Amino acid sequence: MDHWIGQGVTADPGRVHTEGRMVRAALEDARDQVAALFGVRPRQVVLTSGGTEAVNAAVWGVLATAGHGGAPVACSAVEHSSVRDASARHGTVVGIGADHLGRIGAEAVGEALDLSVARHGGPPALVHCQVANHEVGTVQDLEDVVALCHRRGVVVHADAAAAAGHLPLDLEALGADLVSVSSHKLGGPAGIGALVLRRGLRIEPLLVGGDQERGRRAGFENVTGAIGFGAAAAALAGRGRIAAEAGAARARTDRLLTAARAVDGVLPYGDVDRRVPHILCLGIGGVEAEPVLLGLDQAGVAVHSGSSCSSESLEPSPVLEAMGADSERSLRLSVGWSTTDSDVDAFVDAFPGVVAGLRDLRS
Amino acid sequence: MDHWIGQGVTADPGRVHTEGRMVRAALEDARDQVAALFGVRPRQVVLTSGGTEAVNAAVWGVLATAGHGGAPVACSAVEHSSVRDASARHGTVVGIGADHLGRIGAEAVGEALDLSVARHGGPPALVHCQVANHEVGTVQDLEDVVALCHRRGVVVHADAAAAAGHLPLDLEALGADLVSVSSHKLGGPAGIGALVLRRGLRIEPLLVGGDQERGRRAGFENVTGAIGFGAAAAALAGRGRIAAEAGAARARTDRLLTAARAVDGVLPYGDVDRRVPHILCLGIGGVEAEPVLLGLDQAGVAVHSGSSCSSESLEPSPVLEAMGADSERSLRLSVGWSTTDSDVDAFVDAFPGVVAGLRDLRS
Repeated sequence: MDHWIGQGVTADPGRVHTEGRMVRAALEDARDQVAALFGVRPRQVVLTSGGTEAVNAAVWGVLATAGHGGAPVACSAVEHSSVRDASARHGTVVGIGADHLGRIGAEAVGEALDLSVARHGGPPALVHCQVANHEVGTVQDLEDVVALCHRRGVVVHADAAAAAGHLPLDLEALGADLVSVSSHKLGGPAGIGALVLRRGLRIEPLLVGGDQERGRRAGFENVTGAIGFGAAAAALAGRGRIAAEAGAARARTDRLLTAARAVDGVLPYGDVDRRVPHILCLGIGGVEAEPVLLGLDQAGVAVHSGSSCSSESLEPSPVLEAMGADSERSLRLSVGWSTTDSDVDAFVDAFPGVVAGLRDLRS
Repeated sequence: MDHWIGQGVTADPGRVHTEGRMVRAALEDARDQVAALFGVRPRQVVLTSGGTEAVNAAVWGVLATAGHGGAPVACSAVEHSSVRDASARHGTVVGIGADHLGRIGAEAVGEALDLSVARHGGPPALVHCQVANHEVGTVQDLEDVVALCHRRGVVVHADAAAAAGHLPLDLEALGADLVSVSSHKLGGPAGIGALVLRRGLRIEPLLVGGDQERGRRAGFENVTGAIGFGAAAAALAGRGRIAAEAGAARARTDRLLTAARAVDGVLPYGDVDRRVPHILCLGIGGVEAEPVLLGLDQAGVAVHSGSSCSSESLEPSPVLEAMGADSERSLRLSVGWSTTDSDVDAFVDAFPGVVAGLRDLRS
C-alpha cells in the first residue's frame, strides 16, 4: 500500500487511458491474489467495502433476485450480527438451533428446512452457516450443511470472516453459493472485503449506479485497500504459510487457555478442540467484563468482551446467550500475525491478579 | 495515510482498550476535518465507502423510513447514474426536466412535484438535485430547489460529488436534507466518502449489523481511507484555498476551452459560464470519442468520454442525451490539484492534430 500510494497513480480503473489501465492492472492483480488464496477464479471475487457489506449484499442479492417471492431466510443466533440483522431486515427469519458449544450442525439445519416447509409452504430462499464462530471460535460442519442444503435445492451463504486466512479454505471444493470475507481479519487493511460467488451465480447488486465489479457492485474501487488485501492474501497463500501461522496461533491461545483455566471460576466457551486457532473466549465468574479488560489494558494487553460488532457499548452477546452461557461476563482473546510470545506472557502474568483484585473489591 | 500506516495501529475503533481509543481518536479527527470543510457538525457526517454508497444509502434510507408508503422519487436524467439507478431500484421515478445546458432549476422541480400529486396522489418522498453536473460541470440552482421543496414539505438529496472541494459549500446554509460527497473527487483516496445528514434527520441504514457511525452505517471503519479524506478536507479548508484552487482550475479549463473552440466543429457542452472550474465537456463533430482519447493518451493526456461511472464500456451518455446533445461523441476534460500548465500545453498542442488526423482517415 505504501509503495502504491508513493507512486501517486490515482486514475479511475474503468478508463482506457494509460493511467487508468495501470490502476486496472493493479486492481486485477489484487483480485487474482485474493482468488488464489481461496481456490476460486478471479471473476468469482466481488470486492466490497468489508465483511459487513459482503453479508448485506449476499442477503439482499439472493432475496431481490427473482423467484424467491417471500421465502424465509434460515439463520442461527450464533451468526455475526451483520448476518442476523441483514436477514431480519430483508426477510422472515427461521431460526437454526445451536448447541452449548456454538455448533450449528446439519441436523439443526435440516430441522429449520422442515420448519420452513411446514410454516411457510416451502424451503428458505437462503441458509446461513458461518465457517467458524467469530466470538468463541467454534468451527462449523459446513460441508455437511452445504451438502444437505444442495440436496434440497437451497442456496447457502457462509460467513468466512472469522476463518479466512486462519484455516485453509478451498471455496471451490466447499461449494457454498456465497462466501463473505473481510480483509482486516486476515492481516489486510480495514475497509475492504469480498463476496465470493459460486461460478455462474448471478445476484442483484446491493449498490447500483455503475458497471464496476462486472456489474455486481457499483462505485469507484478502493484500489489502495484492494492492493493491501491482495498482499495479505498473497503472503498467506505461500506454501505452508497458513499451517505455520495456525500452529503458532494455536500454541499461543493454548498457553492463554492454560493460564486462564488456572484461575478459579474461569472456563472457556465454545469448542476448544475444534476452533479457529487464533480465538479464545472465556467466561469469568463473579466479575464484570469491562473492569477486567480495562485492568488488562493497563498491563498492555488489548482484549475485548461482548459481541464483536457493536461499537460504543458492551452489550450482552447474543451468541453466548444462544449457547446458554453467561452473556454478560465474557472475555474474547485473539492473536494475530504480529502477536509475540511476550504479549502472551503479559496476559499470563496479569490475568490472575486482575481477576483477584476485582473479586476482592466485591467481597 | 503513509504516516498512519507506518504507525501500525490497526485496532477496532469500537473497542475500549488503548489501541482502540487511539484509532477512534484518529477516525474522529478525520470526521471533524470533513465536517469543517462543509460547515456542519461532525455527528452529521456518516462515513461511507464512497459517493455511490452514500447515494444508495440516501435513497434507501429515505424510502425505507416509515411514512413514505409508495411515494415516488423525483429525479432528473442529468443526475449521476448512481442517483438514477438507486431511485429506479427502490421507487417509482417522476422525471425532472433539464434544459440544453443541463440545468435543472426550481421551475422544472415544481412541475415534477405537481406531476407527482396528479399521478400518485401526493408529493414525492424524495427530490434529487445535484450541486453540479459531473459530466458537463453545470452548477445547479440548488438553493431555489431546496427552498421550493421545503415549502412543499419534500425531502431533498443533493449529490455534491462533482462540486465538493471545488466550490465553497456551506451545507448548513444550503439546507438540503441529505448530501453525498466522494473523497477521491476532491483529492483524497478512493474507497471513502460521506453522506451528510441535516441535523435531527434519522434514516434507516443501508448496511446493518453493527452500531458504527452512530448506528447509521454498520461495518468496521475504513480508518486509513478516512484519514486521507480528512487530510484532503483539511487542506481545502485552509483560508482562501478553495478560491485559489478554483482560480487555477478555471484558468486551465479556460485555456483548454479556447484551444478546443479553435478547432472546427468542436463546441462545449453545459453552462460554460456557470460551471465547476475543473470540468469541461466538448462535443466533437464527425469523429468517435474513443480514437480521440486514445490519440490524446499517446500524447500523454488522460481524458475521458461518455458517462462517468460506467466502466468497461463507452456507452452513450444519458446526461448528454437529456440535454439534446450528441451523446456518442463527447470528451470530458478535468483538471485537479496535481495538474500543471505543461499538462494543459500537451492538450493544446496535441488536440488539433488528433482531430484532424481522424477526420482525414474518414474522408
